Amino acid sequence: MFSVRKATKYRNAFEILELLLNHSVSRSEISEITGLTRTTVGNVVKTFIDLGFVEEKRGKRKNVPGAGRKPIPLEIIPSSLYAIGVGVLRHQAIGCLIDAKGKLLLYEMSPVFEKKNAEEVIKNITHVIDNLLEKANKESLKVKTIGLGIPGPLDPIKGMVLKPPKFSNFENIPLVQLLYDKYGIDVWIENDADMAALGEKRYGGGRTINNLIYIHISEGVGAGIIVDNHLYRGKIGYAGEVGHILLERNGNFVYFEDAYGMDVVIEKAKSEINGNISKLQDITERVKKGDKKAEELIKEIAKDFGLLILSLVHTLGIPDVFIGGKYQLLGDIFIEEIREIVKKYGIFGTKIKIQYSHLGDMAIPLGAASHAVVMYLKKLIIMKEYKTSPKRIFSILY
Amino acid sequence: MFSVRKATKYRNAFEILELLLNHSVSRSEISEITGLTRTTVGNVVKTFIDLGFVEEKRGKRKNVPGAGRKPIPLEIIPSSLYAIGVGVLRHQAIGCLIDAKGKLLLYEMSPVFEKKNAEEVIKNITHVIDNLLEKANKESLKVKTIGLGIPGPLDPIKGMVLKPPKFSNFENIPLVQLLYDKYGIDVWIENDADMAALGEKRYGGGRTINNLIYIHISEGVGAGIIVDNHLYRGKIGYAGEVGHILLERNGNFVYFEDAYGMDVVIEKAKSEINGNISKLQDITERVKKGDKKAEELIKEIAKDFGLLILSLVHTLGIPDVFIGGKYQLLGDIFIEEIREIVKKYGIFGTKIKIQYSHLGDMAIPLGAASHAVVMYLKKLIIMKEYKTSPKRIFSILY
Repeated sequence: MFSVRKATKYRNAFEILELLLNHSVSRSEISEITGLTRTTVGNVVKTFIDLGFVEEKRGKRKNVPGAGRKPIPLEIIPSSLYAIGVGVLRHQAIGCLIDAKGKLLLYEMSPVFEKKNAEEVIKNITHVIDNLLEKANKESLKVKTIGLGIPGPLDPIKGMVLKPPKFSNFENIPLVQLLYDKYGIDVWIENDADMAALGEKRYGGGRTINNLIYIHISEGVGAGIIVDNHLYRGKIGYAGEVGHILLERNGNFVYFEDAYGMDVVIEKAKSEINGNISKLQDITERVKKGDKKAEELIKEIAKDFGLLILSLVHTLGIPDVFIGGKYQLLGDIFIEEIREIVKKYGIFGTKIKIQYSHLGDMAIPLGAASHAVVMYLKKLIIMKEYKTSPKRIFSILY
Repeated sequence: MFSVRKATKYRNAFEILELLLNHSVSRSEISEITGLTRTTVGNVVKTFIDLGFVEEKRGKRKNVPGAGRKPIPLEIIPSSLYAIGVGVLRHQAIGCLIDAKGKLLLYEMSPVFEKKNAEEVIKNITHVIDNLLEKANKESLKVKTIGLGIPGPLDPIKGMVLKPPKFSNFENIPLVQLLYDKYGIDVWIENDADMAALGEKRYGGGRTINNLIYIHISEGVGAGIIVDNHLYRGKIGYAGEVGHILLERNGNFVYFEDAYGMDVVIEKAKSEINGNISKLQDITERVKKGDKKAEELIKEIAKDFGLLILSLVHTLGIPDVFIGGKYQLLGDIFIEEIREIVKKYGIFGTKIKIQYSHLGDMAIPLGAASHAVVMYLKKLIIMKEYKTSPKRIFSILY
């Protein structure tokens, strides 16, 4: 008659897991917050303690006036696992290592890509992971899982990178399998903008808000969307494909990404502006020197980004927007111009807040590492409690 | 440290309510589907039975092989309450009456608006409600609640219609209070496109899908978005404000609604096409008679609607799109042209499905009536179980 909702059985445990990943709370507080019975909470917490990633902080008993026994706060054990996050940019790979509670311990960058082909990209990903693992081993940190944020399209369930644009021969790569074969630990891949949004939410300017849009703009253009503290994926798993929003140009349609990818804009700047232009900063440098053409170019770009951002804000009803990726290099003049347009045409008025990512490209590996911790722990929970087949695990996790 | 998530306490009851509104299930099936304990389910079901809107269908005990006692299906009692839904269009009000299980029993249309001012619009709304109530009374149907779908912007919590465009002096109307004073039962107002999306989901082409976009296009342009079977509201409560997506016209920005509201298009057609044009059908009639200019106009409109629809599909990752409102009158040529564009530029390929609403304008009152049933029952549940103040009830419901 109807299909059982996916993962409902696991929902209670997952909800408590996410609560503990962000807060120190007692069993009774968990029960209060989630509406779950004390028995259910007690059982789930016991599983977490048995699995070795949660502990009672008896020394930190909370004082509750009038109550008899003081509630014992529960906390994730930071050293119970470590995770590596890698962000695959168009020009290099950057990585970080966090503990189970999310504390950033190490970071690492690869050399700059020359060829952008599969061999080189994978070599640099493993370069970053190898270096992080080596440092982790020296300090006896148990790295249990790796998360990667990569330009889409990709298939997170099959672990395949499909065909991200603006690489060279980097397509149909079974990246998860490759890395699992090399390192023997769980690997997760996700869209770069999605991971950046998670990173911004957990570590950056989104820490105190529950809904945000993160627009990642470098060679490609994509958006990660956080709704009620969770990554919004859409039905097809490809929400936020805003690089494929259409612009009208002399009666023809062009994808936003094809009009405003960083490489396209730099080429345009080279032909329109005097001086040596090889990167986005060069354009802002020209503006600072009083170059009117450079200023016009930035305003022209900002205008269409204003249109794109308002399209997202008005569709999603989310007023907090972060701009990340290489476009941050365009600085104040770019974002101020966008703010003007948003102020003029946005129907939510002063509620709309446009800002640059507080983390820059590091948002991607930080988000990917956090994501890996959550996925790894969820997998542990499913395996311990429900002894499910690996295939079924994936249908629950995604 | 963190705020208690809104309505978590009520979540279990609300989840079971929504399950029962759509399915006949036993207590053990509810437990299986929701992951809630049998005790919790038993308590909630007892509350529902005590409140008089759920019953055990003992005659319908399900055969479970090998089991001892057969599980008893639970069902919403159709006659436990009746709800009126009203859709306020730009030219008239249309209404319907449903029972608690959602069965459509009556419908009603007001005269056509002449002045479109507050007095006339409210008079016609009450005309529709009065007629439905009169018929309901004749058959002793207890109407307990009224839902209305109205062009935004509006404030559902304060019950205020703010300033919907393309009316005349229809603004800042405390519509909920006005109708409550007149009828003495709970009244709910919501955005028209949102209610249409709910209507399409429950009664129309969306019955078997969990995610859909409903674009309502008449004088105004708006979208209702269903994510995982629920209305997506966004953080600011104004998701789907797609009439305010910007188009570029000769270097200037124009709101989509201002370029393609029905009234604008008819004016444009009058000046560009021969023959008597006073409504959208007249344009398609001209096309059928071989008028190339009329055909060009429809294709031009369809092109920008294709752009709008792809913007929504790519942002939300939802491939099922329904087009409702007066634009349905543009018929096959309009939607076929949109499908061409979507096929050409859509990155989800053949997954994207564009179709006309199966319900037309009736989607709005049907959605509004369904919404009223849910809100009314949720309010009952909160009041019985938690004896909360009316103000707090609203903070839980929205």
